[in-house]
Amino acid sequence: MPDTSIRSLPLSRCSINTATLGHRSPIGEVIERVARHGFGGISPWRRDLEGQDHRLVGRHIRYAGLSLSGYCRGTYFPGANRAAFEANVADNRRAIDEAAALGAPCFVFVVGSLPEGTKDLADARSQVSEGLSTLLPYAREAGVGLAVEPLHPMYAGDRSCITSLGEALTLCESLDPSRQGGIGVAIDVYHVWWDWRLSVDIAAAGRSGRIMAFHVCDWLVPTQDLLLDRGMTGEGVIDVGRIRREIEGTGYDGFAEVEVFSRRWWSTSEDDVLAACAKGFASI
Amino acid sequence: MPDTSIRSLPLSRCSINTATLGHRSPIGEVIERVARHGFGGISPWRRDLEGQDHRLVGRHIRYAGLSLSGYCRGTYFPGANRAAFEANVADNRRAIDEAAALGAPCFVFVVGSLPEGTKDLADARSQVSEGLSTLLPYAREAGVGLAVEPLHPMYAGDRSCITSLGEALTLCESLDPSRQGGIGVAIDVYHVWWDWRLSVDIAAAGRSGRIMAFHVCDWLVPTQDLLLDRGMTGEGVIDVGRIRREIEGTGYDGFAEVEVFSRRWWSTSEDDVLAACAKGFASI
Repeated sequence: MPDTSIRSLPLSRCSINTATLGHRSPIGEVIERVARHGFGGISPWRRDLEGQDHRLVGRHIRYAGLSLSGYCRGTYFPGANRAAFEANVADNRRAIDEAAALGAPCFVFVVGSLPEGTKDLADARSQVSEGLSTLLPYAREAGVGLAVEPLHPMYAGDRSCITSLGEALTLCESLDPSRQGGIGVAIDVYHVWWDWRLSVDIAAAGRSGRIMAFHVCDWLVPTQDLLLDRGMTGEGVIDVGRIRREIEGTGYDGFAEVEVFSRRWWSTSEDDVLAACAKGFASI
Repeated sequence: MPDTSIRSLPLSRCSINTATLGHRSPIGEVIERVARHGFGGISPWRRDLEGQDHRLVGRHIRYAGLSLSGYCRGTYFPGANRAAFEANVADNRRAIDEAAALGAPCFVFVVGSLPEGTKDLADARSQVSEGLSTLLPYAREAGVGLAVEPLHPMYAGDRSCITSLGEALTLCESLDPSRQGGIGVAIDVYHVWWDWRLSVDIAAAGRSGRIMAFHVCDWLVPTQDLLLDRGMTGEGVIDVGRIRREIEGTGYDGFAEVEVFSRRWWSTSEDDVLAACAKGFASI
């Protein structure tokens, strides 16, 4: 149960990415728990909804008083051959249908990188661009934004060939030069905090209307694991408050979505994790 | 003992960073072993030379038929207070004296980042800039180049607030706007391979005459440890050959220096490590 002192914080501006809770409970329970703690939003993963009716889950979320801040996450685009690439695009098309059925404003893309046994980042980037280009009209029709999430460069080998906000924005501009919209970025402090050009790129993202999602957590020193050792907001060395002010300074008034992959937090009770999310949110 | 088939490779263009051998043997033995394997250069660390006469070690290196490709590495600049910062600058000044005594063409700077308990990257960057600015005239007088090594962004919390080649070059230009020289960059494929702007930045580094060192190794997928799980050149996913061609395309004709931090390689015999270095060098 939430500490009542936490209820007084503006948690309506905070969303919980379900990965933060470790995908331990059925989505229905997670929705109720997130709402009970006073958060304003939720962002589920595809894996949480397997075999379910996305429309009903979306209705449950709204009935619980929550908004959707996004839907996670894209199937990696690059394939070792054309057939693999096309299968990846088709899977992402299905995910866009699911996002639309849920009522999610955007679908978050972790774009993938080098197919096994390859070293050609330029080719991976080219496949990502083609995949997003193929999906953009479809997603616009469905009313689902394509949110490209640049990942930390330590994932450049396997998870994302898009490694900085500047790169993601340049990709968006190349696919939507007239700024019709429908494609933008998900900015996660974990992935971009180190970048000397971050302030400049956040301003550019704001000017071009591309900020579709804002994710928070923290970078621990030392970090013990490349994937599962994120800190809760405020636990680490990222000046999340400064980044948040810069993002809100562009006019962004959406959620701060808490996304923490952490063996440590996943071994903590879901209620305690949510209490920590609220405390971390208050710290920024 | 080296495989004779390896002797036919142009190892004279390859240098061994002593960290690659795990700092297991006295520097005199390491020099002899590196020369025996047919490499053309060596780059020792300060820790290898503690309590020794740097002038004599430099002479030993040259008598063994080796050149110095650099001297490693800078004391982190940022300090929690002014006195700490100044002590760090003073320590780097002593290191420049050592590099000059050795006869090393450059001293490699890993610049440091956030002092413990702080989150202000801009302040860390400002301290780095001031520290290098203070040292530059001294290093020019000593004939030792200041080689700023941008580190992979996964080290932004503790080891280096300079996280890309573009950032390092911009810093060099700000400290040496008239391109008098004496300050440049050490480009390590491990730290920069993911960067979408790498080709552009390598070309710019070449044009401005800033490439002082070129380090090779590889990025493993998966990487098990943020610090001690580098691959030998050719073992991982970096297209080292392409990066090397781009660097040499700018006119760089210095060494490719093998720098591998790896628990796995450090548990392999020094001769086997050197044979693997030669094989990896041949692969690029």
